[in-house]
Amino acid sequence: MKKILNRPADFVDEMLQGIVYAHAEQLRFGGDQRAIVRADAPVKGKVGIATGGGSGHLPVFLGYVGKGLVDGCAVGNVFSSPTANQMLAVSKAIHGGAGVLYLYGNYTGDVMNFDMAAEMADMEGIGVESVLVADDVASAPAKRWETRRGVAGLFYAYKIAGAKAAEMADLAAVKAAAVKAIANTRSMGVALSPCTVPEAGRPTFTIGDDEMEIGMGIHGEPGVRRAKLETADQIATTLTTTILSDLPFKSGDQVSVLVNSLGATPREELYIVYRKVYELLKDAGVTIYRPYIGEYATSLEMAGCSLSFLRLDDELKRLLDAPAASPFFLQT
Amino acid sequence: MKKILNRPADFVDEMLQGIVYAHAEQLRFGGDQRAIVRADAPVKGKVGIATGGGSGHLPVFLGYVGKGLVDGCAVGNVFSSPTANQMLAVSKAIHGGAGVLYLYGNYTGDVMNFDMAAEMADMEGIGVESVLVADDVASAPAKRWETRRGVAGLFYAYKIAGAKAAEMADLAAVKAAAVKAIANTRSMGVALSPCTVPEAGRPTFTIGDDEMEIGMGIHGEPGVRRAKLETADQIATTLTTTILSDLPFKSGDQVSVLVNSLGATPREELYIVYRKVYELLKDAGVTIYRPYIGEYATSLEMAGCSLSFLRLDDELKRLLDAPAASPFFLQT
Repeated sequence: MKKILNRPADFVDEMLQGIVYAHAEQLRFGGDQRAIVRADAPVKGKVGIATGGGSGHLPVFLGYVGKGLVDGCAVGNVFSSPTANQMLAVSKAIHGGAGVLYLYGNYTGDVMNFDMAAEMADMEGIGVESVLVADDVASAPAKRWETRRGVAGLFYAYKIAGAKAAEMADLAAVKAAAVKAIANTRSMGVALSPCTVPEAGRPTFTIGDDEMEIGMGIHGEPGVRRAKLETADQIATTLTTTILSDLPFKSGDQVSVLVNSLGATPREELYIVYRKVYELLKDAGVTIYRPYIGEYATSLEMAGCSLSFLRLDDELKRLLDAPAASPFFLQT
Repeated sequence: MKKILNRPADFVDEMLQGIVYAHAEQLRFGGDQRAIVRADAPVKGKVGIATGGGSGHLPVFLGYVGKGLVDGCAVGNVFSSPTANQMLAVSKAIHGGAGVLYLYGNYTGDVMNFDMAAEMADMEGIGVESVLVADDVASAPAKRWETRRGVAGLFYAYKIAGAKAAEMADLAAVKAAAVKAIANTRSMGVALSPCTVPEAGRPTFTIGDDEMEIGMGIHGEPGVRRAKLETADQIATTLTTTILSDLPFKSGDQVSVLVNSLGATPREELYIVYRKVYELLKDAGVTIYRPYIGEYATSLEMAGCSLSFLRLDDELKRLLDAPAASPFFLQT
């Protein structure tokens, strides 16, 4: 896949410079060239939410820095964890006196660095709690769901926890909202093509012209099976039935649905998938509330899509409905 | 490029069904399975704006059906014009008594069918005016700019004319606003890869692994030259300097900038391009107001990007700033 870039080593820093040029009213650097925070951070008295992770997944992660969402993001190289020092810089820049929640995807490097950053923050008098997003049903069995990878369900975790923090809830309550969102979120994806990390210069994996990988992670982690490319309806059915039976979601449940492009898959195809998901959920007696369809968590120019469901109750619905505004996500 | 679809012949209809399932509060079918209109159409006393064109360019065209934007869209097959009857169905569904503006890209099939629809609408007592978007500087010389193709500048035309209509201006004034927006908009793109029309099943053109096509249209129309793939800074410089000298834009001008992905190019790369555009415009004494960066006019999964500038005055600024809401575009 051909790319529009300069030196691969400058990919992330030039991207960040472009983002801050474009959105200076909403975002700024937070004391480190790899720390992006809300322009108005810290918000006094509000729990600050920090996230972070490797680059290459826009809008994940830094695209959700904004009002009603997260307050800051530590930005790693493509598909690589940011450092603990970068996470600490974010923590200091967003700490408004009510503590900081680390909310991020369950990846080894990120866990190690965020844990280290939490210790460093503690020494500086910033109280930190951590919640890991673990929504990818393909990455571990249901009984060990907390060990799963975090994928597009990150969006729901940010949205729900961010709305709770915007209500000026305390750290324990914001953490509880994040935990509740994650416990009710399940995702699964299918990849049709790999992507190329700029500095590596070669595709993350190889796949036949007539194949797809069901359950693949957003860094090209192996899925549950390699199969011949199926129709949109077959793919939608596989993803929907697997996710439904995992939580499990039941007749009478109300869910938000997220159909997410991994990058190259056009929105036309996402809506063809959504059409089938809609009909399957209708048949299952599950009501859709506030669907999201588009690019929410990508893997550079990977072709494929993922499906996420968030089971709602009255509190989660209120928090999902709350306004939010970042340069990459706006809801009124 | 692999696709997520069912029968290629059902691609457009299934996509539309998915869109109406997902966004029933905002969109509905307007008396034809290829006519998509605002759910609250017609808006009494407001000029209705109709657009249309081939599928495969989301959010263009139907993604801009919404408040403060256009009122309805006739939807063709992939890269093919809708029919005059479909355009007429849209016209009837959105006519609120103040006439209808046809606002669409300058392509032969669309012009023929919209002209025919205008005659049919006239016979039904609906007064129609037409304005063609022609912003692609690569498609004809500056002195014949009205003969150019319409590309991502469609977004600015919809935004400006839509805001004017939302102010309840009359048909002549809405038309004048559209004409003014188009006269002040210039665009140019670069393609790195082709896309595949589902029913054709093969790429729209071939291009070497180390090549790009400068000035290519959004259906794969030939550009101004084929070249070795250049860096992001070189591409941004070529597009920016060509566009600047075309209108021409001058020191002291204030412009909105749109960096648009043609589909597969990730947002990370768009921001690397924007970074250079920002610096070039700063050097040229041109001020950026309200940049837009993302997918605004695509060509299925084509890799590449386009750049558009809209020169602003006080009226255009007010109309650009006005709120707008569609399932694909939200501005508050």
